Amino acid sequence: MSSSSSSTAAPSPAIQSILPRLAAVRAHLAPPNPTTARNLASAALTSSTKPTSTINMAKDKVAIIGSGNWGSAIARIAGQNVVKHSDVFESSRVPLWVFEEMIDGKKLTDIINTTHINVKYLPDIPLSDNVVAIPDIAKAVEGATALVFVMPHQFLAKALDAIEGHVAPGAKAISLIKGVDVHGSDIHIFADVIEKRLGISCSALSGANIASEVALERFSETTVGYRKDKEDEGLLWQKLFETPKFRVQLIEDVDGVSLCGALKNVVAVAAGLSDGLGYGNNTKSAIMRIGLLETKNFCLEFFNDVKPETFLQESAGVADLITSCLGGRNRKTAEAFVTTGKPFDVLEREMLGGQKLQGIHTAMDVHNFLKARNRLGAYPLFDKVYHICWDGLAADTLTDGL
Amino acid sequence: MSSSSSSTAAPSPAIQSILPRLAAVRAHLAPPNPTTARNLASAALTSSTKPTSTINMAKDKVAIIGSGNWGSAIARIAGQNVVKHSDVFESSRVPLWVFEEMIDGKKLTDIINTTHINVKYLPDIPLSDNVVAIPDIAKAVEGATALVFVMPHQFLAKALDAIEGHVAPGAKAISLIKGVDVHGSDIHIFADVIEKRLGISCSALSGANIASEVALERFSETTVGYRKDKEDEGLLWQKLFETPKFRVQLIEDVDGVSLCGALKNVVAVAAGLSDGLGYGNNTKSAIMRIGLLETKNFCLEFFNDVKPETFLQESAGVADLITSCLGGRNRKTAEAFVTTGKPFDVLEREMLGGQKLQGIHTAMDVHNFLKARNRLGAYPLFDKVYHICWDGLAADTLTDGL
Repeated sequence: MSSSSSSTAAPSPAIQSILPRLAAVRAHLAPPNPTTARNLASAALTSSTKPTSTINMAKDKVAIIGSGNWGSAIARIAGQNVVKHSDVFESSRVPLWVFEEMIDGKKLTDIINTTHINVKYLPDIPLSDNVVAIPDIAKAVEGATALVFVMPHQFLAKALDAIEGHVAPGAKAISLIKGVDVHGSDIHIFADVIEKRLGISCSALSGANIASEVALERFSETTVGYRKDKEDEGLLWQKLFETPKFRVQLIEDVDGVSLCGALKNVVAVAAGLSDGLGYGNNTKSAIMRIGLLETKNFCLEFFNDVKPETFLQESAGVADLITSCLGGRNRKTAEAFVTTGKPFDVLEREMLGGQKLQGIHTAMDVHNFLKARNRLGAYPLFDKVYHICWDGLAADTLTDGL
Repeated sequence: MSSSSSSTAAPSPAIQSILPRLAAVRAHLAPPNPTTARNLASAALTSSTKPTSTINMAKDKVAIIGSGNWGSAIARIAGQNVVKHSDVFESSRVPLWVFEEMIDGKKLTDIINTTHINVKYLPDIPLSDNVVAIPDIAKAVEGATALVFVMPHQFLAKALDAIEGHVAPGAKAISLIKGVDVHGSDIHIFADVIEKRLGISCSALSGANIASEVALERFSETTVGYRKDKEDEGLLWQKLFETPKFRVQLIEDVDGVSLCGALKNVVAVAAGLSDGLGYGNNTKSAIMRIGLLETKNFCLEFFNDVKPETFLQESAGVADLITSCLGGRNRKTAEAFVTTGKPFDVLEREMLGGQKLQGIHTAMDVHNFLKARNRLGAYPLFDKVYHICWDGLAADTLTDGL
């Protein structure tokens, strides 16, 4: 196991400086029990020495593809749960694909494999020891039968290029990717893109999940949307992700779950504009209501198998929309757009370290799609966000015509 | 017209001190147009000199029963709209029942009728000149055909005692009252109580409406629920309340609209407890989702004519729940309950000037009702709020068993 062999070597000074913080954080997280990080190494060893681990060929091997803030938080849970459910999952090793970066002269993968902390994207919170950072994406997915895609959608095409041909027979995937894939009058969710490209079934997970709060084991909920008649896959993903503090609901609705995760970012931009304008809570909640309704109507109009109950009943629906409009980068950056008068590309550099603000890019994708379908008039809030963010329309026209 | 005759007398020193603030606020509100407060007096005069005002017997006469924060904000809109729609409403005079109080040695009704400001409950924001404060409730409703009930529900029974026998034939009412009327295993909304007692049809209005934001003409939405086959009444109330910045939606669902307005306060208490515990946005939005779902299930289980779409589509549903969980006294006081450790009766005195916190009292009503129906188990969040607020259960058990 690479993580345990690494941890016996003397840590570098950069890594040594992290260790006291790590110890403090470990002490603040849930007390040790058989599934917590402290005991994972021994639990994993016990599990891997069981005869069933070699005899039972049906065990799923998990790989996490992406290691940003959310990828790291999800890897932390998956690393714990494969041990808890070692009858179902190969538990000794959960490969985590990490886009290699140098941090203070050290490779990020080496830091993760030594300290078990993703110092760049989820500082202070330890991953399980069985989560192994791997810089080569093809190696990370080698032999994996349960692929978890969790990355900004801009990186997916390149990741799929590298993965194609390396996926095990009978594998299945789940997409935690936000956004929509628009080409002219065609629109696809990224679970469809993965499914089509790799020829494997792909579910979707989305919910009111600020990554750092999930990692700190604050009570949270999420939704897994599974494909028609594939509840067994939903149950597998539930097993991989559910904890007492991270509740996983299941619904047969990959489209609705995925689209909620994309479109709520557009609504969060609108909420941020409203905050920047100082409009108060009546206006903000009106915008959220209208945004939720446009989301529901959009899903039902353009996708066939969407379940109407996803929007009110599921965490992926109303709850994620609420979280995103209360906190989150889309709301915050849109607020700054109004209060500072700076354009979004400047704010992306200043506030997001150069990362793209998903809400405004999804607003553009949705605008282009609705324009191609000649349906802009039916979605006045989505359209208004587009024109304010991309077209120079004054922000204080936000509620006009809603 | 008592208001204009009063305004020609020299104002008292107490009132003179308000006038500069009033002028400043008037200047900040929407610019004068034929329906704004500045021009109401002349508009009202023009209207009342039209021959139609005496010939057309079908004109509705509005009375506002209650003059707290929300009552005053609604009276402000109604005073403007009766002028705008003087073909439908008697526009020269909108009686506003005011529970008489002494403010700096002056009667509150005299202050309102002189300055056109409810200095106690909606300071700084002028009412229309045609809104006339009246301390005698029977006189306030004399001849009125459109009765707007807007008061804490604790005062309703006494108000109805005084009104009974003074209501004009063919009158209709609308309830803006929050709460539920529970007796053992019976539950009623207050629109039903009004309807039964006065023998007149009663609609309901509820929505994401923080009174001060509505009064300041921030973009807001609300919902009017009207009785089965009585859309004409819904349209009348829409005419009385709708403005470009206060959008009134209609739905044939008095029960759902009323119950949302009551139960959201229980959810807001839960959200406040979560805030007090420092649980973050994932947890808070999970609580809001669960609360909205319990609200919907409660309405559908115990009331016959509730429309499922009220909860997601209407301002009275999801939007009001959001506003109440973001701001509002229920959230704030429940947060203080956790952070200060003080009991609610102390917090009601310290934070609410002795007024009752609706959410905890509705939680008790709902608990008693569900207990009588042996249905507590189906509403774990409502039940948890009751036990934490009234029964000494530790607040940090809030999310257990949800």
